[in-house]
Amino acid sequence: MSSQGKIVLGVDPGTATTGYGIIAKRKGSERIEVVKCGVIVTQKELSLPERLYIIYQEMGHLINDYHPVEVAVEEIFFNKNSKTAISVGEARGVILLNAAMQSIPVFEYTPLQVKQSVVGYGRAKKEQVIYMVKTILNIQEIKLTPDDVADALAVAICHAFQSETNYSYV
Amino acid sequence: MSSQGKIVLGVDPGTATTGYGIIAKRKGSERIEVVKCGVIVTQKELSLPERLYIIYQEMGHLINDYHPVEVAVEEIFFNKNSKTAISVGEARGVILLNAAMQSIPVFEYTPLQVKQSVVGYGRAKKEQVIYMVKTILNIQEIKLTPDDVADALAVAICHAFQSETNYSYV
Repeated sequence: MSSQGKIVLGVDPGTATTGYGIIAKRKGSERIEVVKCGVIVTQKELSLPERLYIIYQEMGHLINDYHPVEVAVEEIFFNKNSKTAISVGEARGVILLNAAMQSIPVFEYTPLQVKQSVVGYGRAKKEQVIYMVKTILNIQEIKLTPDDVADALAVAICHAFQSETNYSYV
Repeated sequence: MSSQGKIVLGVDPGTATTGYGIIAKRKGSERIEVVKCGVIVTQKELSLPERLYIIYQEMGHLINDYHPVEVAVEEIFFNKNSKTAISVGEARGVILLNAAMQSIPVFEYTPLQVKQSVVGYGRAKKEQVIYMVKTILNIQEIKLTPDDVADALAVAICHAFQSETNYSYV
């Protein structure tokens, strides 16, 4: 555990935009702090393999720079259309590979679990999630756009809150 | 171009079983030869990130050992259920990443294009594809199981036949 506490990397994968949120939970404290958050954006002019390579490299940099001990990702919504599902799957594959290459365990949460955990209500609206993410991290002044940033932070917070009861890939 | 001719790597991606078929087309010849084919099988007891890491490593070995100049993959069928689509997408993401890391262009073909090219009939049955793959490669005696092996060889053959008219990711 680093001096910042336990570092968790939350990821919202996508081939065009991958959101990430790195949070720290100090030992013996309920307080969660944001370490870094943002998006990896890949240009649509690039080929799909090139876009995936950029995601792979950027995720690698984040892992090397911030040393997360756990990675949290949202389970994919199965009622999206399958073209979207494949595209998200491609980005997810690269993210999970990054984690496996560094032996970092990956934890998955459904959108319901994330909302329940962060807002206290499984059918909360997007605005409520954003509001609670800002409140929990005490970053009311920061604009969390695009949504992928808030989503990545939300799944990281969900993991930090629930890490006793979750299930791991590793 | 190696002494064996132009080497093409065909891949049928999946997190449990990824088929691969490496073929060589000699310069100035219509003759296509199989160089190596098989499957990367990952144990279901492993975590998904671990499985993807194995696929990544094995694909890397194949690329390093056989130096394909082009990679061919089948476009995913969108009428499969989205859980399958995500899973195939995860494996595809890793395969496309492998290619991008080695600057190998990736070419995609629909199942219709593969069947049309290999069998001459876009709605050919699986057995017809297997029969024609064996005939074209002159490997009647080899048992191409599981199906992923024949599918990987078929998309590689399709690419070798059509490489004037295809489209590339890179």
